[in-house]
Amino acid sequence: MIEKLTKIFSSFPGIGPRQASRFVYHLLRKDKKYLSEFTELVNSLKESVSLCTLCFRYFETTNKEISYCSICANPSRDSSLLMVVEKDTDFQNIEKSDVYTGKYFILGGTLSILEKEPEKKIRSEELIKRVAGDIKSNGLKEIVLATSINPDGENTAQFISKILSPLIKKHKLTLSMLGRGLSTGTELEYIDSETMKSALQNRK
Amino acid sequence: MIEKLTKIFSSFPGIGPRQASRFVYHLLRKDKKYLSEFTELVNSLKESVSLCTLCFRYFETTNKEISYCSICANPSRDSSLLMVVEKDTDFQNIEKSDVYTGKYFILGGTLSILEKEPEKKIRSEELIKRVAGDIKSNGLKEIVLATSINPDGENTAQFISKILSPLIKKHKLTLSMLGRGLSTGTELEYIDSETMKSALQNRK
Amino acid sequence: MIEKLTKIFSSFPGIGPRQASRFVYHLLRKDKKYLSEFTELVNSLKESVSLCTLCFRYFETTNKEISYCSICANPSRDSSLLMVVEKDTDFQNIEKSDVYTGKYFILGGTLSILEKEPEKKIRSEELIKRVAGDIKSNGLKEIVLATSINPDGENTAQFISKILSPLIKKHKLTLSMLGRGLSTGTELEYIDSETMKSALQNRK
Amino acid sequence: MIEKLTKIFSSFPGIGPRQASRFVYHLLRKDKKYLSEFTELVNSLKESVSLCTLCFRYFETTNKEISYCSICANPSRDSSLLMVVEKDTDFQNIEKSDVYTGKYFILGGTLSILEKEPEKKIRSEELIKRVAGDIKSNGLKEIVLATSINPDGENTAQFISKILSPLIKKHKLTLSMLGRGLSTGTELEYIDSETMKSALQNRK
Repeated sequence: MIEKLTKIFSSFPGIGPRQASRFVYHLLRKDKKYLSEFTELVNSLKESVSLCTLCFRYFETTNKEISYCSICANPSRDSSLLMVVEKDTDFQNIEKSDVYTGKYFILGGTLSILEKEPEKKIRSEELIKRVAGDIKSNGLKEIVLATSINPDGENTAQFISKILSPLIKKHKLTLSMLGRGLSTGTELEYIDSETMKSALQNRK
Repeated sequence: MIEKLTKIFSSFPGIGPRQASRFVYHLLRKDKKYLSEFTELVNSLKESVSLCTLCFRYFETTNKEISYCSICANPSRDSSLLMVVEKDTDFQNIEKSDVYTGKYFILGGTLSILEKEPEKKIRSEELIKRVAGDIKSNGLKEIVLATSINPDGENTAQFISKILSPLIKKHKLTLSMLGRGLSTGTELEYIDSETMKSALQNRK
Repeated sequence: MIEKLTKIFSSFPGIGPRQASRFVYHLLRKDKKYLSEFTELVNSLKESVSLCTLCFRYFETTNKEISYCSICANPSRDSSLLMVVEKDTDFQNIEKSDVYTGKYFILGGTLSILEKEPEKKIRSEELIKRVAGDIKSNGLKEIVLATSINPDGENTAQFISKILSPLIKKHKLTLSMLGRGLSTGTELEYIDSETMKSALQNRK
Repeated sequence: MIEKLTKIFSSFPGIGPRQASRFVYHLLRKDKKYLSEFTELVNSLKESVSLCTLCFRYFETTNKEISYCSICANPSRDSSLLMVVEKDTDFQNIEKSDVYTGKYFILGGTLSILEKEPEKKIRSEELIKRVAGDIKSNGLKEIVLATSINPDGENTAQFISKILSPLIKKHKLTLSMLGRGLSTGTELEYIDSETMKSALQNRK
């Protein structure tokens, strides 16, 4: 049991066998009530959480017939703007910053440069369908690519630009990327030339 | 649900809110079968695991009437030798190295220097009882303190020496500590004087 | 000798006694020719390097009567733009990125929040004089604050805004700061709200 | 000048171009007196420091005719014991710990496993000569290998064992290695099996 559970925890993101083992001992020290509350939460997770069929983020709902999340269903969010992010935790963090008023789409992954089947690794078909739908019914005007500033993130952005390019050209959409510049903790001594360029252009 | 479960995972050893959140999304992407297998393992953990009443380590057994672990119950382990360790994972690692043939006792914690009630923080009474019992029935001759070489570990070792001192004196037990010396990765340029002294004495 | 030299190297930026000691042994292994070349370079450093009386950066020149550096003396650099940086290495890195065409001013330090005599810690008087002079003779229109995005950098920027404020108001100068946004390596999951806001505004 | 000096500092152990550049600006901010004191120290280094012809460590002396360091020349140091270390800073640290009373030999390097000409990379011939001499005139009985506990250190120890093996066999010397065990900061949870074995054997 200990070994099996250690193995499962080892497959959790960022967890190695030693920390997995500590998790098991952590649970062993808890009483039965704690454990049953924990497992009930885990078991009811899928019941209480749905995957939004528009943006593909997980959202909580007790009504399984609702297939749109609160943001996709919110008429006061700006439908002309669609931000494409890598994963749920990115969405969470951006939404927390409370500066974006448009809609979202969660890719569900990133593409490494050596990825052989990029269209299967991320929700590429779903994205095309979503964009096409939003053009038709929601007055979509701009797609904001919000992938990370690292090789995988930039490769993912490039792939998306490519697959969306027919729709973008045909409907004269804007495809934008988040602005680059100094971020918290940046020291001028170490800044790269591309970031410096943007920081200078975007000075205010 | 997501928030509640994130909070529980945040209380796991070494896990902050961000990683806890990633755990929840990790589970959301799994199917029902995986989740029910996981929770069944967690729920049956306490049924299949007992706390040894002699060494206080967790051990697996389907028979709840067995109160001694396989090491405490093993007549071929050397009963004259008792190693006192901080926690289950220390025991696991030492046992894996396959060089120790005696018995164990798990303290269940360490004592920081400012600890106000040290006797409650670790299994001090249980240790005294175990040592007394082993003197009487098992021919205990030596107690090996295997706490970590850091302030808390050394403070814990000192506290145990003190509380065991009456028994040790009365029954002329040996109280030893694991030998110090060069460990894997040690560079001579950074070695402290106490470690150097032991490394020199223990050369071979 | 070894000890004295070790002590001097220990006062070099970022160097502790151990690495200082390694520097001395490094020099001991070199031949006389290497050492004399090294010391001649150090001794002639002050002769061949001047401090620009306008921007206060170090620049190389064999003519000690020249008091302006090549950038301050360059008529094709944009005199209407003055970038204020913390130190020479910041200047070096920005200049290397080849995107800025204006002039510079080197503060020579940063101000921590607890700094008691900020006006003495950095070249505040010299900056005021430089700005006044540039307004009069060079058509200065904008001052770009390029301090680091950390508490000391932000405190320094605030102090400079304050001391320059009379001149800025009187002559209707623009006081700008480098734009914030995603910098290389930024992951969306960890971005702070202020950086996100700028990244969104500066999208393109 | 700045560039040339930056390049020299970049060749100092552990120093990259950025820190080298900071060193140059550090010197530029110093006055002439400081710089001349610094360069005089560097220039007189070779005059005031000799390489001991017995142990090959650098030692300070004003008399260039003295060829033995204070430890090699000290009759109260135990001549029957010779410790072989990698470099001067190892010697320094061991001597500081004040627990070793024998003599030393400095190899001047370590051997990586792929080293093609090991006998040229470290002072192998000099070591053989030193050992032969000490057997003849100083009653040498034991050689203590004090290389680091990492792949290079262990490979170096193995190479030395091999080249000294004829002398060791013929004269029945002891070849020992520093004892292994827990060193400061070691946590039992992460200890490797070989270190555990020694720590157990060397308990006291």
